[in-house]
Amino acid sequence: MKRVPDSFFPPIALDPSKKTPLYRQLFDWFRDAIVSGQLRPGQRVPSTRALAAELKLSRLPVLSAFEQLHAEGYLQTLVGSGTMVSQSVPDDASKPTTSARPVPAVRKSPRKISRLAAGALSAPPQLWLNSLGPFRSSLPALDHFPIRIWSKLIARHFSRPLRELMAYGDPMGCLPFREAIAEYLGAARAVRCDPSQVMVVTGSQQGLQLCAKVLFNPGDPIWMEEPGYPGAHQAFTTAGLRLVPIPVDREGLNVKTGLRRSRLAKGAYLTPSHQYPLGATMTAARRVEILQWASRTRSWIIEDDYDSEFRFESRPIGALQGLDTNSTVVYLGTFSKVLFPALRVGYIVVPTDLVAAFSAVRETADIFSSTLYQAVLTEFIREGHFARHLRRMRTLYMKRRGELVDAIRLQLGGTLEIVGEEAGMHLVALLPPGVDDREVARLAAQNGISAMPLSMCYLKKPARGGLILGYGGTDAKEIQDGIRRLKLSIPRPT
Amino acid sequence: MKRVPDSFFPPIALDPSKKTPLYRQLFDWFRDAIVSGQLRPGQRVPSTRALAAELKLSRLPVLSAFEQLHAEGYLQTLVGSGTMVSQSVPDDASKPTTSARPVPAVRKSPRKISRLAAGALSAPPQLWLNSLGPFRSSLPALDHFPIRIWSKLIARHFSRPLRELMAYGDPMGCLPFREAIAEYLGAARAVRCDPSQVMVVTGSQQGLQLCAKVLFNPGDPIWMEEPGYPGAHQAFTTAGLRLVPIPVDREGLNVKTGLRRSRLAKGAYLTPSHQYPLGATMTAARRVEILQWASRTRSWIIEDDYDSEFRFESRPIGALQGLDTNSTVVYLGTFSKVLFPALRVGYIVVPTDLVAAFSAVRETADIFSSTLYQAVLTEFIREGHFARHLRRMRTLYMKRRGELVDAIRLQLGGTLEIVGEEAGMHLVALLPPGVDDREVARLAAQNGISAMPLSMCYLKKPARGGLILGYGGTDAKEIQDGIRRLKLSIPRPT
Repeated sequence: MKRVPDSFFPPIALDPSKKTPLYRQLFDWFRDAIVSGQLRPGQRVPSTRALAAELKLSRLPVLSAFEQLHAEGYLQTLVGSGTMVSQSVPDDASKPTTSARPVPAVRKSPRKISRLAAGALSAPPQLWLNSLGPFRSSLPALDHFPIRIWSKLIARHFSRPLRELMAYGDPMGCLPFREAIAEYLGAARAVRCDPSQVMVVTGSQQGLQLCAKVLFNPGDPIWMEEPGYPGAHQAFTTAGLRLVPIPVDREGLNVKTGLRRSRLAKGAYLTPSHQYPLGATMTAARRVEILQWASRTRSWIIEDDYDSEFRFESRPIGALQGLDTNSTVVYLGTFSKVLFPALRVGYIVVPTDLVAAFSAVRETADIFSSTLYQAVLTEFIREGHFARHLRRMRTLYMKRRGELVDAIRLQLGGTLEIVGEEAGMHLVALLPPGVDDREVARLAAQNGISAMPLSMCYLKKPARGGLILGYGGTDAKEIQDGIRRLKLSIPRPT
Repeated sequence: MKRVPDSFFPPIALDPSKKTPLYRQLFDWFRDAIVSGQLRPGQRVPSTRALAAELKLSRLPVLSAFEQLHAEGYLQTLVGSGTMVSQSVPDDASKPTTSARPVPAVRKSPRKISRLAAGALSAPPQLWLNSLGPFRSSLPALDHFPIRIWSKLIARHFSRPLRELMAYGDPMGCLPFREAIAEYLGAARAVRCDPSQVMVVTGSQQGLQLCAKVLFNPGDPIWMEEPGYPGAHQAFTTAGLRLVPIPVDREGLNVKTGLRRSRLAKGAYLTPSHQYPLGATMTAARRVEILQWASRTRSWIIEDDYDSEFRFESRPIGALQGLDTNSTVVYLGTFSKVLFPALRVGYIVVPTDLVAAFSAVRETADIFSSTLYQAVLTEFIREGHFARHLRRMRTLYMKRRGELVDAIRLQLGGTLEIVGEEAGMHLVALLPPGVDDREVARLAAQNGISAMPLSMCYLKKPARGGLILGYGGTDAKEIQDGIRRLKLSIPRPT
């Protein structure tokens, strides 16, 4: 419905049946008309009374609209000459905006983004991450999480939350939670730390970013396990570090090769308890070697202890951090893999003299971690639910691992070679030489399988392709069915 | 209690009364003895049977310890020669670790950290952030948050959480939440966007970091409002940008000065609705000017709409983003200031052609945002609780603002000059010329007051000091009491 005021003005289109209130429609009309140049700077506008009469409106919406137009500087009132379009609105203004507010069209030519973003964009799409299909890596058994206990703890905390739990928090995290983490790490992982050294982060990815920012300058070389964890590649590449691939074997990262290739590297990223993805445990000899190197060259070691809770053949291996007498190790862990990923709660243990630096840099990143889950997790640990859940999952994952190994041997025994099945929530299945693992993973993803290609973990070209098969979140039926479907995705040996 | 085995071996100290299990004590003892060199590579160790007998233990803990020592490579067994300390453990090993696991001492000389971390550390301590005292900036009225409704929504979602809500999520956020945000922003802020353009972040600080990383390269110049938001200074400094201070006046950032000082800047950071901290609303003329500049020079505008919900003198001002027809604006907002800070939920609205880049870079930062609050907030918005809460808070904050203004005029009228009290959750009280605002803030902090010095917001030297006084989380009684205590912290004019 259109209403037309006097000839002085372009027609004003208002529609009382629309959801947008009339004052807002009027405001939009004026703003658009001024910005588009339909109304010129200095042009007189009718009085609110006259406009209301002409538009057959009550004066209230007109007053509201004008008040707003004044506040935003579109209109000005000069004593003696009434209300007019502001002189200071440039008359070569941009195109009008419409009340329909469509999304502006995208320019044809690509626009300039940072080198960093261009690099992140250049990564090929990972189809296998699009679903929660069988063998999704790092996914725990969500349906076995003690959700009732968890809900009860949440309810307990949120029925009467503390002021401190709702306000701005410490970049390091809530102290009771950090105490519980320090105690757990000391007992279960032989990590030596004081709660003051524990920082709560939103996951190990953030932990890696913080390490990169605090410990290194752009351009610094850092030893990376080859193959290694792609998330760490991303974090350190983003921070501008120079990634030096050092091969891993059955004893973990080959320190001697590291010394030969890049003795003066500023740091090393390690998964000593359970090498990602191949599964080796770093031996005592190598541990001592790398600690000595770090201490001699004043380099930093980043120990990512991402899933060491699940060890089947022997007891969990103690952390490298616990062996370190020179505080060269920053230790990372996460609750996402042992409880559920959407938690976004992890932790880092930093040397005492670096606590202030980590805290300051964390503050620039995202200030602090959400506090609710910290309080809930504290009680979850203190009341023994965490230890109980870990025990139950250890048994469950061991069973699933056995089922997966059996299914592979039975159905794909001649094709896949199993590596690294002693621990964790995944194993690696090596493909026959010459088979492109990304192609297999893509085909498998089309069949609903979430298997990550091993070559994703390499900085250089891998000798042999493979698939990383997670079994934490994949039950017996899905394992059987998944392996059947996987078989269809692997080209037959020629 | 010490038990001593045969002469072959150093004494093994085990204590059955300790909480640490015996196998672990034994393992620790061996590891420490090997690492410290007390036991040499190749040295024979007693059989488990012999050791158990000597230590008067059952064989089980000894077997467990040895199994673990083998697994970690400290011991090896050669056919015919029994078990020995591994040959490959270097004998110039580091110092022993003790079972007491004390925290290693910090080196005397400071160790090398990154330039970035050193910069972040060099910021002076902000005593006024140590408490939640009166006038804490950005703190909402926590005790007025509808906690019962919130708890009910949390309980509803967590009694039967979706698998998708617990697993890995989209770096952009949960779609229903992004739809609710897009709708809210369209209606309340005149932001023009499709849900596909909305990314859920952990707060505006993370949003700023992402903008810096995606849109700019290190060294790029960016216009900053002077004075401006310290969190933005931190984020952009961390990203290596060159911050160009552009003065603000009562019409917002002075675009002409910007053009004169740094026409080819790659971007501008703005708070157009309610300039932080001085409170100006950017006028229509300036808005059009800066959009034209951005469009001409292909620069990016980062619009931080941090508290535009609370406007008292007129209706909320529409976002700059809604005027932009060239998709040069990235728009940021947060729920932390309107609901509660510990939420850690904010959002950014990015131009359609940049969605993939923002998503890729977000993934390298922390993968994705925790999902629980996203689901809860979606219903909080959809069921109208959000709009109701905003209305109630607008009234409350208007009342508190009045009380604060009155208290200042009454008790400190000759000393403080009030600026920017039309909107938001804070005002600025200018100190008499020559008074050091950091000194005043430090003294006030000692008196339990959380007032931020205005000079914190300047990149250059400010003309005049002042205090940023938040009133969102400060009630009538605290305001009265706070101003009395503040008075004691301000030197009397000489």
